[in-house]
Amino acid sequence: MPRLIVDVMPKPEILDPQGKAVLGALGRLDFEQITSVRQGKRFELEVEGEVTSEVLERVREAATELLSNPVIEDVVSVRVEEEQA
Amino acid sequence: MPRLIVDVMPKPEILDPQGKAVLGALGRLDFEQITSVRQGKRFELEVEGEVTSEVLERVREAATELLSNPVIEDVVSVRVEEEQA
Repeated sequence: MPRLIVDVMPKPEILDPQGKAVLGALGRLDFEQITSVRQGKRFELEVEGEVTSEVLERVREAATELLSNPVIEDVVSVRVEEEQA
Repeated sequence: MPRLIVDVMPKPEILDPQGKAVLGALGRLDFEQITSVRQGKRFELEVEGEVTSEVLERVREAATELLSNPVIEDVVSVRVEEEQA
């Protein structure tokens, strides 16, 4: 069964307190090379039947309507990921 | 500046109430074709300097230690994403 991956991230201009907290913790563990962290959401959707362009478009709609908050988040990608055998 | 993407998902055997809630909502909006939803986290890390295999290994360690809860989550991927021009 094909699996769709939807990635949702906070809009660049939005303050990301979780990302800042992680950055601070990374610094305390000597991960100096990491200069910024942003945290978003990743969804794995299993889809019945073939993934046509219409299905992808519908999932993109669902992602904007349901999986993200368009005021503060962007749907950065919707892609098909073949099931690992 | 290269950007690393870290994807963290709940372990397959772990109950995912958020995923279930989203699935229910999708059903009410006639997205019948979607049969399961799992929700995880996506991190974007900006890294200073070159991304060597050592750096990738260190980030994988940080992902396991800090970005995920190894009891209920798996780090499913750590990859380099070139900045969009």
